[in-house]
Amino acid sequence: MPEIAQTVPPQQTFKLTLAYDGTDFRGWQVQPSESTIQGELQAAVCRITGESPLPQGSGRTDAGVHALGQVASFGLVAPIPAANLHRALNRTLPPAIRVLETKVVENTFHARHSALAKTYEYRIYRGETCPPFLARYVLACAWKMDVSRLEMAAQAFLGEHDFLSFAATDPDLTTRNLSPTTGQEPATGAVRTIFTSTWEERDNDAGDMLIYRVRGSGFLHHMVRNLVGTMLDVGRRQMNLEDIPQILAARNRAAAGPTAPARGLFLHSVEYEERENGLPNSI
Amino acid sequence: MPEIAQTVPPQQTFKLTLAYDGTDFRGWQVQPSESTIQGELQAAVCRITGESPLPQGSGRTDAGVHALGQVASFGLVAPIPAANLHRALNRTLPPAIRVLETKVVENTFHARHSALAKTYEYRIYRGETCPPFLARYVLACAWKMDVSRLEMAAQAFLGEHDFLSFAATDPDLTTRNLSPTTGQEPATGAVRTIFTSTWEERDNDAGDMLIYRVRGSGFLHHMVRNLVGTMLDVGRRQMNLEDIPQILAARNRAAAGPTAPARGLFLHSVEYEERENGLPNSI
Repeated sequence: MPEIAQTVPPQQTFKLTLAYDGTDFRGWQVQPSESTIQGELQAAVCRITGESPLPQGSGRTDAGVHALGQVASFGLVAPIPAANLHRALNRTLPPAIRVLETKVVENTFHARHSALAKTYEYRIYRGETCPPFLARYVLACAWKMDVSRLEMAAQAFLGEHDFLSFAATDPDLTTRNLSPTTGQEPATGAVRTIFTSTWEERDNDAGDMLIYRVRGSGFLHHMVRNLVGTMLDVGRRQMNLEDIPQILAARNRAAAGPTAPARGLFLHSVEYEERENGLPNSI
Repeated sequence: MPEIAQTVPPQQTFKLTLAYDGTDFRGWQVQPSESTIQGELQAAVCRITGESPLPQGSGRTDAGVHALGQVASFGLVAPIPAANLHRALNRTLPPAIRVLETKVVENTFHARHSALAKTYEYRIYRGETCPPFLARYVLACAWKMDVSRLEMAAQAFLGEHDFLSFAATDPDLTTRNLSPTTGQEPATGAVRTIFTSTWEERDNDAGDMLIYRVRGSGFLHHMVRNLVGTMLDVGRRQMNLEDIPQILAARNRAAAGPTAPARGLFLHSVEYEERENGLPNSI
């Protein structure tokens, strides 16, 4: 009998841009018997195509954290056009998760591995009575805050630093990066580069908002929330500006300020190389 | 023994203005083992003062309906200053319910009986993909809508009409207003006066919004949602403008259009006589 060449079915790689209200989900990552963004997305793709690839996110977002532009990627054998998958996903997903864009990209694309930079926003409501329609999406800070001190604190994080003091002390990070010889976190494991780090006062219909925006090469678990918690301590004069270099040098979570609540945090956008913005000829 | 005159303890009447996100409550009215706005408010007042008056609302809002300016009234024997009660309520209530104003008013004030007019808003999102942060607060209408037809339909409701065709066919209304002789709804039972009834296109950060605003002497159960559902049928040419006078004349719920979903509806404000806006000298 002649040998039959085994053929791998052709596969399209999809890149989705997603917005979600994270309040009622147990974060991004799929979990048994819990509603998560990744789990809802996988279930929707399966209902539409019969295939169950695990969508890869640009990173995990924690329970309660929102997204304006999370990116996910996965491959499908089904020859479904991007526009049809897009419409079907928005009909199938819960209203708290919306697909903003659906593109076919090169098969080498991976939402996490291909990411060049990410931007997060942290939103604070400063008025006395936080409107109930904002309560899920902001940290309400009625206390007096020195915005110029917040701005100076934000600048202290610019550039390349070891951010271990601002990383969650969870087993995930510590086991992953321990040096096999010393049992210690290697100096490079928590090194990240921050490109922009700014506070902006924004007065809109909803009132008096204060927005922190940070763009960087990558972020450790809880890093943005720990940066914000520390800056807020500086802003209300519970910590000195001069302490920040020492906190970074300590490489110890206990040196930094508290973790700001999840509800104020938004994954704003993820950047990739130009060519990863979609193939001209999708099916 | 000399007779001791029984004295009624002096009581202050409080008028609260409330905003709430109605999504996660079973409406205004207190219900056993369900979370309601009235129930949360009563529990908060009790935790603060030890007294449990049942707060009277200007009207009931249904499950999922929101408020920007609901008004409630109740009496307290405790000599608590309005400003203290205000702060304590906002510390005690869930973040989805906020007290915007707390005043001591004349003891004759009653949030429902004293109301002169009410204004409701109904919010529609017209864009293709409704942002997940708006999904709880709008009806998403991706279909084509003729706004000039909506505006003409809205004008047809102005003035005094019998709105029985736009009232929920619930036992509450039908038993309350049945004539003892004829067993029929008396002509005056569903008569209400609409002072303003307008549609407004509003482009904001969140996108392309369409807002219906209606101010009237009072509203029957589901009336605003039934007006909106009927106007939307006119707006998308499923019903003729000329049908509206006939629907009003029919005095029959089946003649009108569908009930628009609760999530787009906001009780905007309630109006009272000037003197009911607070006493100069509260405790």
